[in-house]
Amino acid sequence: MAAKKAAPSAASAKAAASKRDAVTLAKIEKLAQAALKTVKAGDNPALELPVRALSNVSFNAKKRIIELGGKTQTREFFNTSMARKFMQTFLVADKCRELVLADKTVTIRQMYYLSKHTVAGSNENTFEDQGESDPIIEDLEVGIDALREELHLYANKRGLVAGPLVVNDTGDEIDLARMGRGGWGIPSICESDVLKFVRNKAKFVLLVEKVAVWQRLNEDGFWQKNECILMTSEGQAARGVRRILQRFATELNLPVYVLVDNDPWGLYIYSVLKQGSINLAYESMRMAVPNVRFLGMSSFDYKKFNLTAAVEIKLNDDDIKRAQQMKAYPWFHDKKWQREIDELLHNKFKMEVDGFLTKSVTFIAEEYIPKKLRDRDYLQ
Amino acid sequence: MAAKKAAPSAASAKAAASKRDAVTLAKIEKLAQAALKTVKAGDNPALELPVRALSNVSFNAKKRIIELGGKTQTREFFNTSMARKFMQTFLVADKCRELVLADKTVTIRQMYYLSKHTVAGSNENTFEDQGESDPIIEDLEVGIDALREELHLYANKRGLVAGPLVVNDTGDEIDLARMGRGGWGIPSICESDVLKFVRNKAKFVLLVEKVAVWQRLNEDGFWQKNECILMTSEGQAARGVRRILQRFATELNLPVYVLVDNDPWGLYIYSVLKQGSINLAYESMRMAVPNVRFLGMSSFDYKKFNLTAAVEIKLNDDDIKRAQQMKAYPWFHDKKWQREIDELLHNKFKMEVDGFLTKSVTFIAEEYIPKKLRDRDYLQ
Repeated sequence: MAAKKAAPSAASAKAAASKRDAVTLAKIEKLAQAALKTVKAGDNPALELPVRALSNVSFNAKKRIIELGGKTQTREFFNTSMARKFMQTFLVADKCRELVLADKTVTIRQMYYLSKHTVAGSNENTFEDQGESDPIIEDLEVGIDALREELHLYANKRGLVAGPLVVNDTGDEIDLARMGRGGWGIPSICESDVLKFVRNKAKFVLLVEKVAVWQRLNEDGFWQKNECILMTSEGQAARGVRRILQRFATELNLPVYVLVDNDPWGLYIYSVLKQGSINLAYESMRMAVPNVRFLGMSSFDYKKFNLTAAVEIKLNDDDIKRAQQMKAYPWFHDKKWQREIDELLHNKFKMEVDGFLTKSVTFIAEEYIPKKLRDRDYLQ
Repeated sequence: MAAKKAAPSAASAKAAASKRDAVTLAKIEKLAQAALKTVKAGDNPALELPVRALSNVSFNAKKRIIELGGKTQTREFFNTSMARKFMQTFLVADKCRELVLADKTVTIRQMYYLSKHTVAGSNENTFEDQGESDPIIEDLEVGIDALREELHLYANKRGLVAGPLVVNDTGDEIDLARMGRGGWGIPSICESDVLKFVRNKAKFVLLVEKVAVWQRLNEDGFWQKNECILMTSEGQAARGVRRILQRFATELNLPVYVLVDNDPWGLYIYSVLKQGSINLAYESMRMAVPNVRFLGMSSFDYKKFNLTAAVEIKLNDDDIKRAQQMKAYPWFHDKKWQREIDELLHNKFKMEVDGFLTKSVTFIAEEYIPKKLRDRDYLQ
């Protein structure tokens, strides 16, 4: 049913040029061939998928990432409770194949629409809502070992970057040192065949959680003075941010420092950057940045920098509960992290990086971060 | 108390270079001088401020913008119910003066921290939370007739742009046609002294609500093929987006088309772009773009483009209530708008622009928008 709309032949030359696309196509075709073979043999076609649940997730203390274990589940075609999901998986796989061949990308919401229709001769929709299609995408990713970016899918784009680095994005050479006050929007897909690093003069990367902090630092000339790449994730890091950060760390060998607000959410943002998330454990290898350093904002910064009551925001019940959960995570078991989280609970308040403005407008850029870097005062 | 931290003398040369800054400083100083004069005369110093409430807001049908009326309120120093706000207004004004002199900008959240402290010899904080400082900023804006951007303040930055336009932002020349898949982040402050238009080849502007739609159109080469500036507001338009759009319309004389989802929220986004908002009526003159055209997504597009049930999202009670409110707004009184909103209510469903992917991946770029433009099928 899919072949009607796409024009694979016209685009296939371009598609073939990309090794990544060729590998993805081979993986999708292998999946389809296996099912076809079973059908031809008169058997019940089935998909073998790794289980994506807490029961199959563990923290690899050596690699320092969250990993998916070996447990698998079988999804059979001739099984009333599995048939719908079985069909959906192949429908999404087929649409991804079309996207790869046409060299187009869509969001996971757009994929929902792309693959939604009423099955001919019935009242049955292929998908009722995006809550049905998103897990199928994740199944497919883990089932054929291809990130969604390789399937030409992405979640929404978020994040900005500036610094002494020249990149080439899909043919456009972009000097990230000449972005004015705006910054370059970090693309959703940051794989090396579409985004190349041309020339780098940066010595490290600073990622800040909030765009307001990024703007202050950018205006203060922080990245020029400190020869660094300045990024903001604009909250929880989108996949593009995580992937470009990993490439900065591994390909350019840059140390990465993270500056988030002093609250459990900030710790969580740092934690996902560092070792991945439980939900998406299967992509940790390609997304996590195990060497990332937590520059702040630390609960100990209150005394260290003589902050006042003006920056205190009382912890609420959710904050306390969340902080206690953090304490129990294996990747925060180390004494230094326990001490950090204990101090947050002991303070009974959280703080925002913006709170440093009670000292002065340029305190973050000119005093706080330089002192932290000079003293090597960070957690890892 | 403020003079301790800033270093106005060092920065004043640079500040003086900007005419805009000089005008703002004069306005702040006039405010202070007036109060000082009253004090010296032994009188009760007072501020005369326009009332910022629905009772003082009206729609100017000729200019097609929402305007603030002439009602004013007096804020006296020697009045227990007014003294706190009186002090706060001067405190914020003083901090803004420092920012202008130092040529720095901060968010309104950062301004809250910048001006928050415990009053010496008391337990009284200058501000308890941002809910107290934001209205004071608005008072100051309207009180001295200076936009917050002129006071070196801004709300968070949001929005991306690409297209055949070269800009110069604070000294960096940026070719918006060479942004790859990323786009340039639209700054919070888009006044002409910091952001200049260098060369333009675009024939119109298309602003889309959602970043996912922007990404699809950017990938499909929409702005190249159609010689236009492609922007996304990423939801409700931030002030930077509104201001740059107004400058595109007035300085470059470009028609502006807006493409939002087919729901009351989409209509509201369009409406704020066009005639401003009730809350911030005093800035309509500098922010509203009265000639902006509503390209879609129209409730009539469902039949016009043969969409199917796959795109229907049932209206909820809030949607219906909101749509009925929209119908009552004077700027939607025209028959064509009543018809548009009636059709939404009659459909009983809303739609997303992404829904066009049920037709094909490139339908929005290659069929929907071109047909709308060709047929001049838009509302105004």
